[in-house]
Amino acid sequence: MRQSQRGQVDPFIVMDVMEAARRAEASGRHIVHMEVGQPATPAPAGARRALAAALEEPLGYTVALGLPALREGIAGLYRRWYGIDLDPARVIVTPGSSGAFILAFSALFDAGDRVALGEPGYPSYRQILRAMSLQPVGIQTRIEDRYQPRPEDLPTDVQGLILASPGNPSGTVLRRGELAALAARAGELGMALISDEIYHGLDYGAGFHSALEVTDKVFVINSFSKYFSMTGWRVGWMVVPESHIRTVERIAQNMFICPPHASQVAALAALDCEDEARANLAVYAENRRLMLARLPAMGFDRIAPPEGAFYIYADVSSLTDDSLKFAGEILETAGVAVTPGLDFDPRRGAGTLRFSYAGATSEISLGLDRLAAFMAAR
Amino acid sequence: MRQSQRGQVDPFIVMDVMEAARRAEASGRHIVHMEVGQPATPAPAGARRALAAALEEPLGYTVALGLPALREGIAGLYRRWYGIDLDPARVIVTPGSSGAFILAFSALFDAGDRVALGEPGYPSYRQILRAMSLQPVGIQTRIEDRYQPRPEDLPTDVQGLILASPGNPSGTVLRRGELAALAARAGELGMALISDEIYHGLDYGAGFHSALEVTDKVFVINSFSKYFSMTGWRVGWMVVPESHIRTVERIAQNMFICPPHASQVAALAALDCEDEARANLAVYAENRRLMLARLPAMGFDRIAPPEGAFYIYADVSSLTDDSLKFAGEILETAGVAVTPGLDFDPRRGAGTLRFSYAGATSEISLGLDRLAAFMAAR
Ligand SMILES: Cc1ncc(COP(=O)(O)O)c(C=O)c1O
Ligand SMILES: Cc1ncc(COP(=O)(O)O)c(C=O)c1O
Repeated sequence: MRQSQRGQVDPFIVMDVMEAARRAEASGRHIVHMEVGQPATPAPAGARRALAAALEEPLGYTVALGLPALREGIAGLYRRWYGIDLDPARVIVTPGSSGAFILAFSALFDAGDRVALGEPGYPSYRQILRAMSLQPVGIQTRIEDRYQPRPEDLPTDVQGLILASPGNPSGTVLRRGELAALAARAGELGMALISDEIYHGLDYGAGFHSALEVTDKVFVINSFSKYFSMTGWRVGWMVVPESHIRTVERIAQNMFICPPHASQVAALAALDCEDEARANLAVYAENRRLMLARLPAMGFDRIAPPEGAFYIYADVSSLTDDSLKFAGEILETAGVAVTPGLDFDPRRGAGTLRFSYAGATSEISLGLDRLAAFMAAR
Repeated sequence: MRQSQRGQVDPFIVMDVMEAARRAEASGRHIVHMEVGQPATPAPAGARRALAAALEEPLGYTVALGLPALREGIAGLYRRWYGIDLDPARVIVTPGSSGAFILAFSALFDAGDRVALGEPGYPSYRQILRAMSLQPVGIQTRIEDRYQPRPEDLPTDVQGLILASPGNPSGTVLRRGELAALAARAGELGMALISDEIYHGLDYGAGFHSALEVTDKVFVINSFSKYFSMTGWRVGWMVVPESHIRTVERIAQNMFICPPHASQVAALAALDCEDEARANLAVYAENRRLMLARLPAMGFDRIAPPEGAFYIYADVSSLTDDSLKFAGEILETAGVAVTPGLDFDPRRGAGTLRFSYAGATSEISLGLDRLAAFMAAR
C-alpha cells in the first residue's frame, strides 16, 4: 500500500532512550527520569473535582471553538497575566497546543510554503510542518543570544516564523523589546508570526511577555499542559487576529469537531486553581536551584540561562561528539535518563543534552547524586 | 495577516439551521432536534465510573498510539464483531475518528493527490482533504445503489478512496461482496483504501461488515463516538497495515502527542459496557420504526433504506429545490430542526434533507406529530 513522502517524518531519538529506560525498569532497576517533558503531578484538585461532578452530563460535542465560559476564562488570564484586554471571541480552545499548530499551519500556509524556526527548538514544529507539506527553515541560534533568534537572523524568503518563549529545550525567555523587534521584522518581511507561549507561568524571576503585548498580528499558542499540569488532557488554546477567527473555526469544525469536552470542563475549573499551579512551580524552583548548584561543578557548565519552563540545556561538546551514546552511558551507568540534543537541533545536537527538572525534588536530588558520581568516575 | 488558500474550506450550512434553532430556543420556543448527529445519552456508566476512579492518577501523556490495554481491547472487538484475529499492534488510538483521518491522509497522500469519495457523504472528508492540500473527487452515487459507489464508478486517476458503511447521511450499508468488489477495484487502480466504519454496531438487522474481512490493505477507521455514545470524549481508532504502523506512530507523536488520557481510560471501560450500548440501540430502533411508519405518509417517501446509523436521508426534490429554505420553514413553522442536504452533496443537496433519530423517543414522536401537521398544511 502506498506511503506518502510527507509522512516520512524523522523518528524521535529520545524514544530510544525512553525505551532503554523502560527496559531497565522492567528488569528491576530504578531510573531517575530527567528526560520527560511533563509534570509528574496530576491536574489541579479543583479541576478533577469539577469533572467528577459533571460526569452525569452527556458531555457530547461542544462547539468547535470550545466552551464559551472557557474562552472567557482564558481571556481573563490575559488580563491577570499581562494586563491585556482580550476579546474572548479571539480565543480558540484546541486539542492541546499541538492541535493549535495544526490549525495555525492550515489557516496560514499553503503546500510548499517555508516557515522559519530557531534551532534548538521543539522537534514537532518541524515534523508537523513536514507532514503538512510545508518546509521548516532552521535558524541556528547562539548560546550568547540565549538560543533565541535575532531580527537580522530571519530569512527573507519565508512565509512564517515560529517563536518560543520560554523555549524548549533552552528554557530561555524573550524580553519584551526582543519580541517587539522580532515581530516588527517579521511584519516587514510579510511573515506570519506564531508565538509558542506554552511554558508561560513557569518562570523563576525573569518574568514573561506575550507576543500580544507587542502586536495583534500574531497567532499566540498556549496550553493547559505545563503550568496547569494537564498534559494528558489535551487542552490548549490559540489567540488569533479577528480576521482569522472564521477561517480557523471552519477548519476546526472539520478537522477536530471539538476539543475533548471532559477536559474542557476540567480546564475551566483549573483556571481557578492557580494556587496549586504555583505550588508546583515552587517545586520546580527548588529542583532548578539544586540543578544549578550542582551541574556546573560536575562539568555541565556551558548552559543556557534557564529562565523558564523546567529544562536545562547543556552544551556537552567538550565531553562528547555523540550525545546519544553519551546519554546511553549515563542511563546504563548512572541510572539517569536524559535527552540527547539531536531531536532539538539536527546540526549541533550531537553535542548537547537536555535535563528536565519536572519531577519530584527527591528524584532530582537522587539523580544529581548519581550524575555527580558518574562524572567523577569518567 | 496572510491567509492560506487551503484554509478556505466551505462553511457548514447546517450551522445556520443550528443557530436559528438556538435563537428560537433562546426566545422561549421548544425545538425538536432532528439535525444533530450525536446520541443524547452520556458515556456508559461503567466508563464514567472507571474515569472517576482514575482521577487521582497523574493522567499525563500516554504513548502516541494509545494505552496498550485499550489497543488490545479494541482488537478484541474485532474478534467479537467480525471473527477477525487482529494484532493489537495494528490498532492505533486516535483523537476521535477525525484525528484518524488526519493521520491517514498524512501517511498516505502528498499535496495535490486526489481522493475519491461518494456523494452524498460526511462533509468533513472533503474539507479535511482540502485543508491538507488534497483534492476531493466526488462520486455521484444513486439512490437505487443505496447511495454507495459501484466499482465501475471509481475514477482511474485518483490516489485514494474513502468508503463509509453505514454512510452518513444515507445510513446505508455495503454488503460483504460489495466491499470486496470495491476493495479489489481500488487495489487494481493502485488507490489507497480508507474505510469509515464509525457507525458499526448501530444496525437494524442488515448486519455490517468491516473492510478488514475482505482485505488487509486498508485503513479502517472507527470511533467510540456513536455506538458507545462518547462523541465529546474524542477517542477513535484506526487499524492500519503492518507496513504503516511506524509511519503513523511518528506522525501521531508529533501531531497529537497522544489521544486524551482520561478519555482513553473511559473508553477502555466502555468496551465492557456493550449492554448499555445495546440499550441505546433499542431506543434508536424504536425511533426508526416511528420514523418509517410516519414519514412516507407525510410525503417523505423517497428515502434511502435506513440500514444503520441513526439517519434517514430523504429526496425532497419533488417538494423543493431549496432545501435550506425548506429546512428554515420547517424550523420556523413546525419547530423541528432538520439538516438540508447541501453539506453532504454539493450538487444534489438542494433537493434532500437528513432526519436524525438519535434523540429520545418522546422527542422524535413529538417531532413527527409536528412534521405531519406542517406537511398537511402545505
Ligand atoms: C515548546 C512546546 N510546544 C508545544 C508542546 C505541545 O504541548 P501540548 O500539545 O501538550 O499543549 C510542547 C510539549 O512538550 C512543547 O515543549
Ligand atoms: C461518517 C462519519 N465519520 C466520522 C465522523 C467523526 O466522528 P468522531 O471524530 O467523533 O469520531 C462522523 C461524525 O459525525 C461521521 O458522521
